[in-house]
Amino acid sequence: MSFRTEHDTMGAVQVPADKYWGAQTERSRNNFKIGPEASMPKEIIHAFGYLKKAAALANHELGVLSAEKAELISRACEEIVAGQLDDQFPLVIWQTGSGTQSNMNANEVIAYRAHVLNGGDLADEKKVLHPNDDVNKSQSSNDTYPTAMHIAAYKLTVENTIPGLEKLRDALKEKAAAFDNIVKTGRTHFMDATPLTLGQEFSGYVQQIDNSIRAIKNALVMVAELALGGTAVGTGLNTPKGYDVLVAAKIAELTGLPFVTAPNKFEALAAHDAMVELSGALKRSAVALMKIANDVRMLSSGPRCGIGEIIIPDNEPGSSIMPGKVNPTQPEALTMVCAQVIGNDVAVSVGGATGHFELNVFKPLIAANVLQSARLIGDACVSFTDKCAAGIEPNHDQIKTHLENSLMLVTALNPHVGYENAAKIAKKAHKENKTLKEAAVELGLLSATEFDEWVRPEDMVGSLK
Amino acid sequence: MSFRTEHDTMGAVQVPADKYWGAQTERSRNNFKIGPEASMPKEIIHAFGYLKKAAALANHELGVLSAEKAELISRACEEIVAGQLDDQFPLVIWQTGSGTQSNMNANEVIAYRAHVLNGGDLADEKKVLHPNDDVNKSQSSNDTYPTAMHIAAYKLTVENTIPGLEKLRDALKEKAAAFDNIVKTGRTHFMDATPLTLGQEFSGYVQQIDNSIRAIKNALVMVAELALGGTAVGTGLNTPKGYDVLVAAKIAELTGLPFVTAPNKFEALAAHDAMVELSGALKRSAVALMKIANDVRMLSSGPRCGIGEIIIPDNEPGSSIMPGKVNPTQPEALTMVCAQVIGNDVAVSVGGATGHFELNVFKPLIAANVLQSARLIGDACVSFTDKCAAGIEPNHDQIKTHLENSLMLVTALNPHVGYENAAKIAKKAHKENKTLKEAAVELGLLSATEFDEWVRPEDMVGSLK
Amino acid sequence: MSFRTEHDTMGAVQVPADKYWGAQTERSRNNFKIGPEASMPKEIIHAFGYLKKAAALANHELGVLSAEKAELISRACEEIVAGQLDDQFPLVIWQTGSGTQSNMNANEVIAYRAHVLNGGDLADEKKVLHPNDDVNKSQSSNDTYPTAMHIAAYKLTVENTIPGLEKLRDALKEKAAAFDNIVKTGRTHFMDATPLTLGQEFSGYVQQIDNSIRAIKNALVMVAELALGGTAVGTGLNTPKGYDVLVAAKIAELTGLPFVTAPNKFEALAAHDAMVELSGALKRSAVALMKIANDVRMLSSGPRCGIGEIIIPDNEPGSSIMPGKVNPTQPEALTMVCAQVIGNDVAVSVGGATGHFELNVFKPLIAANVLQSARLIGDACVSFTDKCAAGIEPNHDQIKTHLENSLMLVTALNPHVGYENAAKIAKKAHKENKTLKEAAVELGLLSATEFDEWVRPEDMVGSLK
Amino acid sequence: MSFRTEHDTMGAVQVPADKYWGAQTERSRNNFKIGPEASMPKEIIHAFGYLKKAAALANHELGVLSAEKAELISRACEEIVAGQLDDQFPLVIWQTGSGTQSNMNANEVIAYRAHVLNGGDLADEKKVLHPNDDVNKSQSSNDTYPTAMHIAAYKLTVENTIPGLEKLRDALKEKAAAFDNIVKTGRTHFMDATPLTLGQEFSGYVQQIDNSIRAIKNALVMVAELALGGTAVGTGLNTPKGYDVLVAAKIAELTGLPFVTAPNKFEALAAHDAMVELSGALKRSAVALMKIANDVRMLSSGPRCGIGEIIIPDNEPGSSIMPGKVNPTQPEALTMVCAQVIGNDVAVSVGGATGHFELNVFKPLIAANVLQSARLIGDACVSFTDKCAAGIEPNHDQIKTHLENSLMLVTALNPHVGYENAAKIAKKAHKENKTLKEAAVELGLLSATEFDEWVRPEDMVGSLK
Repeated sequence: MSFRTEHDTMGAVQVPADKYWGAQTERSRNNFKIGPEASMPKEIIHAFGYLKKAAALANHELGVLSAEKAELISRACEEIVAGQLDDQFPLVIWQTGSGTQSNMNANEVIAYRAHVLNGGDLADEKKVLHPNDDVNKSQSSNDTYPTAMHIAAYKLTVENTIPGLEKLRDALKEKAAAFDNIVKTGRTHFMDATPLTLGQEFSGYVQQIDNSIRAIKNALVMVAELALGGTAVGTGLNTPKGYDVLVAAKIAELTGLPFVTAPNKFEALAAHDAMVELSGALKRSAVALMKIANDVRMLSSGPRCGIGEIIIPDNEPGSSIMPGKVNPTQPEALTMVCAQVIGNDVAVSVGGATGHFELNVFKPLIAANVLQSARLIGDACVSFTDKCAAGIEPNHDQIKTHLENSLMLVTALNPHVGYENAAKIAKKAHKENKTLKEAAVELGLLSATEFDEWVRPEDMVGSLK
Repeated sequence: MSFRTEHDTMGAVQVPADKYWGAQTERSRNNFKIGPEASMPKEIIHAFGYLKKAAALANHELGVLSAEKAELISRACEEIVAGQLDDQFPLVIWQTGSGTQSNMNANEVIAYRAHVLNGGDLADEKKVLHPNDDVNKSQSSNDTYPTAMHIAAYKLTVENTIPGLEKLRDALKEKAAAFDNIVKTGRTHFMDATPLTLGQEFSGYVQQIDNSIRAIKNALVMVAELALGGTAVGTGLNTPKGYDVLVAAKIAELTGLPFVTAPNKFEALAAHDAMVELSGALKRSAVALMKIANDVRMLSSGPRCGIGEIIIPDNEPGSSIMPGKVNPTQPEALTMVCAQVIGNDVAVSVGGATGHFELNVFKPLIAANVLQSARLIGDACVSFTDKCAAGIEPNHDQIKTHLENSLMLVTALNPHVGYENAAKIAKKAHKENKTLKEAAVELGLLSATEFDEWVRPEDMVGSLK
Repeated sequence: MSFRTEHDTMGAVQVPADKYWGAQTERSRNNFKIGPEASMPKEIIHAFGYLKKAAALANHELGVLSAEKAELISRACEEIVAGQLDDQFPLVIWQTGSGTQSNMNANEVIAYRAHVLNGGDLADEKKVLHPNDDVNKSQSSNDTYPTAMHIAAYKLTVENTIPGLEKLRDALKEKAAAFDNIVKTGRTHFMDATPLTLGQEFSGYVQQIDNSIRAIKNALVMVAELALGGTAVGTGLNTPKGYDVLVAAKIAELTGLPFVTAPNKFEALAAHDAMVELSGALKRSAVALMKIANDVRMLSSGPRCGIGEIIIPDNEPGSSIMPGKVNPTQPEALTMVCAQVIGNDVAVSVGGATGHFELNVFKPLIAANVLQSARLIGDACVSFTDKCAAGIEPNHDQIKTHLENSLMLVTALNPHVGYENAAKIAKKAHKENKTLKEAAVELGLLSATEFDEWVRPEDMVGSLK
Repeated sequence: MSFRTEHDTMGAVQVPADKYWGAQTERSRNNFKIGPEASMPKEIIHAFGYLKKAAALANHELGVLSAEKAELISRACEEIVAGQLDDQFPLVIWQTGSGTQSNMNANEVIAYRAHVLNGGDLADEKKVLHPNDDVNKSQSSNDTYPTAMHIAAYKLTVENTIPGLEKLRDALKEKAAAFDNIVKTGRTHFMDATPLTLGQEFSGYVQQIDNSIRAIKNALVMVAELALGGTAVGTGLNTPKGYDVLVAAKIAELTGLPFVTAPNKFEALAAHDAMVELSGALKRSAVALMKIANDVRMLSSGPRCGIGEIIIPDNEPGSSIMPGKVNPTQPEALTMVCAQVIGNDVAVSVGGATGHFELNVFKPLIAANVLQSARLIGDACVSFTDKCAAGIEPNHDQIKTHLENSLMLVTALNPHVGYENAAKIAKKAHKENKTLKEAAVELGLLSATEFDEWVRPEDMVGSLK
């Protein structure tokens, strides 16, 4: 392997000759061998592409960067955004908590890639752009990293998480409509209860996802606020007038997303409450999805010794030892994702709560966990929809058997015979293993005709319409 | 102790003769000796007072309950709301997960108290009202408990949590204004950084609390939606037409809060995502407050061997062995509260994620944790404001000493000499224990006059204005 | 209400005339109106009784406290241990994070109660004992509060938590033995699987609890180590030689528990890892109990539309609207407790991780959460055992029906016809709604006689014996 | 891309022609596009190598597998263990919760790789080994995956986590010894307190790590117990007599680690409490490390406006905008790791608590989180030691300045003048900005000579020796 020499304010560093990164990246790469290499999320890297280009454009527009330099920076940034330079970002999450070296990684790669784009050679000691003075102009790691974090989180959430949730919501909504007339026994406390329709049951899931999406969108409002322009401690030192507003507008333009400058840069550097809030909204969605996935798993249980009221698609052989077994693997993947998101939220909270003075230094941790949660929810919803939810079918026989057996149909008699007499009927039927009608008539509380008239499952499900 | 006999559908139960509760309450009291007695939050009890009265009024208005019975129920409910019957609610949180016996506790106390208000005697076998058929009419535990939970949480949040946060926000805002001209050293990574004003530092806290309040208010929108009218499984079985909308309106009227009926009752019984979301918003606020309290603790540290840039009120002798010691006790209480709220949020998430089919049966757990979090944040903010934040004063001497010493003032030289030369100055000053000016001049990078002109802390803090 | 004047190093304070507490307690009471009054756990108060008596005895033995004073302190402490002075401890959890004022509360109550026991009057300005110089001799809040915390946690764990777990373990072990010959269908992924006995299923629960107890006992080893003797920062300043070892021995003697002095007092003050570890062991037990309680809830589900393989005792009417309904209320209470313990563990972790320098100041938070977890697990296990586990009965009919229907009996054919042929049989039976035998014979893979010989559920459960 | 056809019990599947995996792996790969591909931890893959070889050897020894097949399986397994087939394991964590397809991935790769090693061609329809009947003989996913999980966790913990912790412990122990005579001010509540030595401060960290290691080792005792031999539901169906004990012995032999068969296979499949417990021990270690890393960060803060009592190595330029700034990046990485481990523990707890009946189906989630935590702690400890802890030096000047200034030296006067008089001295000194000696003498409480004799910081730190 061959090397070239780069330097930073601490001195000279040997860098792999064919890599665009420079001294600071190399230092961090050597100093932090924690976990797998290059674990800094790609979304963050790409966000730096948008950010650095926007900063160059704003700097030029405000007269502090030449057109030529701005153009060179832009070209390198476009390659980053396109994912063409992913292998130039070797750093890990577990580095400095400000992400300084990831910011410098971007600065160095842009400066040196631009130098090559400009016809220079990586081995040249003097490059056309300086990582700090040009690429990082009007910036600090302290405002760029959180900005990249917000760009990445917002983008991933609207491109992956919300569409995933919407896709699942739509699939379940379709099922809710299709199952609208299928009356089945309800279950509360895991015990037989009064009837509802399978469609009603699914409508609850739809509502849960709708509310989850609403919560995520609420949280995004603050994620749209960008720290950029605050520089080192939030004062905006070394930025031209109007820069913060302009650079946010540039980012909004480049990404097509409604980013604005944060109203208070001190908060935007020292706290990442917006990310904590987004994590909380994702966690709240995970809580909802966990319930839905568990219901699907349990409703489809059996095939002969479980609840078995719905049938889900068979996707893989379910057992390496039990022939013919099929398992609810998609609900399982989804519930595992939900558990992860609940755990990630705690990591984010601990990181979010432990900022000091002018800077929170748990930034890469917060970014990595929120992005993983956003990614997992989006992906898992798509997978669960395509491979499971969209194929759910009712098991009419089982539904009918359960419904007819349920003792809780007796509840329809409350208004006619009172709660206590109704209880007598149910208890007698249970104890003597009889039908409700038999028990009711034997107790002399009503006639068989009255029973048939009053206890009609299909009449017990529509009161709210 | 003397007893009277009450009965329910399971048979006869001996109940303390002087208590208004009945058979079901007594069963639960005996069956669940877990944790301290009567731990069901008072806010839930009082909320049942509003709820049961509203139901009686709606039932009467819709023609299914007599005026006389509605009036009797109302009178008993008013006593509950006023806290006069608190000692009639002996049940614990750790009972059935639906809170059924707490609902029945309310039904029994209302029925039997009404009987006495009506001139009856507790020992009468037949009472004027039946707990199930009259007081619980058009209701189920499954829709009443979550409704009481929402009423209690909404009320406590707007009466205690938000006012507490606002009070702290206002006090900090006042400080931010008062400290507007106090230039001090910034700190990032706990290390000296470029300057800002003490007012700017505090303005970040104000923004954090403002955003917290916004998040809580967002969450409340869904807490305002009430399950009542769904009865057993969400279908509204055994309710008169229009009941759900009407009863929510009655509750809104009685409480003066904007409650409405939930758009989907299946979701409102089977999931408590609205409470999970509120818990998340409270947790997000705790994360913000933890940062603020830690800063106050650390900024006031010393008095002689710490940061010492602010002075907080002395409230108690700080040590039983170190004479004259004073500690930041209010920040400590606040950070402990924050840790509790972060933990409570996990308990709520686990409970919220573990509902099955038509009912979530972690209701009392969820209620207790959200209410504790809401209470603690509100109370702790008031305490922290009154006993600490309102009395914060700058320690001008220490601020000045630190500011003058800070090597990071060198950042102002970046535009003039470049990042690398500026670094040389700072490093030389650090290594040789000199001032920046001495180092700069010795390095021949600028003149003393230029230094004085370019490095002016008061000019380094205002770029964003 | 009448008052008397007490003073501390900050000056005079008005204290309720009839209370034993003094100036510092009163200051804290007024300064921390957070949550319900007197929320400091009683176990901590009582532990202070042991601790202060032990310190007095050790101080006397080492010649720094007179016999008379030691005797007076001891008498007051015995009243505290006996719970007779509980109402003299009005402070809350949410005070200073060192628990200084709770230590002073103990010092003051002991000093002033001793004064009265000695014939003095509470209104006397000069008391026979000084809270700091006598009662707190050789102590600091910084070593007393963690010591009280360890005493309380150890005691509660061995007196409540472990016995509760053992009681449940024994009840389940009895059931495992009683159900040893009941062959039933297994379930993996909530789907029908190969058979096992009901006794084997319960034996897994027994193992889970055994392992939980082992983990708790492992954690207690470190909780037995006491900070006392470290005083203010761990150096043992102002203690006589040999005091730390002696005072731990005294505490061991008074409590009958194996307390020893901590090997490193700096760790014992600055970190509460031992409590974090105990919390983790309690959490691990909660995870185990959650699984067990969920299984019991699900195995008993129905009665007609669920799994229904076991029958649990009916304890309360299960619904205020559905007559005759009975619910698994004890499993519900237990799972709510488990969720709380999981949440508490996070609060403890956050508190434990946030100590600084020589002192962790999240002590009351840590104490309160660990004690609540220990209490809840112990209480809930007793309740669950007495009201549910001990009364579990098999539902033979349902077990038999399920077993005979299970397609997974086909697994017994693997060694005879291979996995793939066995799968063909199961799939055919499932698709055509036939028995395995019918499908097997129709496929010509084996004879009916072979099937009967090879597929014998009772032979499929004993391979490990 | 070219494909070959493989089949399983569900039918034919097109598989990349050059890959060793088969139909089931391919199904899962297509069905679970959640998160990054091939995210199943390598440690799990390699553990399957040990496990499958051990099973083949045991099967052969017990007479149910031919020597030739056992030999072929062994050869393929050795390649897996050596990491040579890593790219043949494309599956993700977020698949079925039993890890069935990862078990089948191992079965398929071994069967097909063995076929090639045996001279066969991947395109052959009939292979020399059958993935289920041969490679998976006497096994089920339900006992192999948890076994692989335990092997992987045990191995990583003893090879990475514990050595990492020991390395840090040793480095800190060395520092504790080296700093033994450096007297410095203590800090409690972040406020000046009585003195201790820097060595004593570090000795607390050593104790914290020692205790963490002890806790991890306690947890490993149960991780050493293997589920293998339980097969589908814990009964050991389709295993030869003595297999469970023998196969665990084989694994112990192959790995050189003390694995044994689990005493109860039902528990070992249905619950992963051992992993939950290990996660808890890792979390407890993270809590300890968080405290240590925070102290190092804060003690080294400054260089001119912070605590500044220790100096840590400069590793990277600390700021992209502030020239010459150096930050405590290693402590930051370590505290981020700790936050992650605390979050992971919650994910593991949720997964661990949500098993049902005979199987916990959160296995890959649990494995991935525990392994990440174990890896991160080990790696971060090494990084923190090498790049930070080993290079810590005292800042004698700053330590001396602080010590001399500390008002809490007054505590040494308690035995001479009493707590209240001592407090007067400290308060006067603080208020009037004087030295303690000046204040003491002015108050007439003692002479300057007495002060010098009684207040000697070096005498205040050794009481426990």
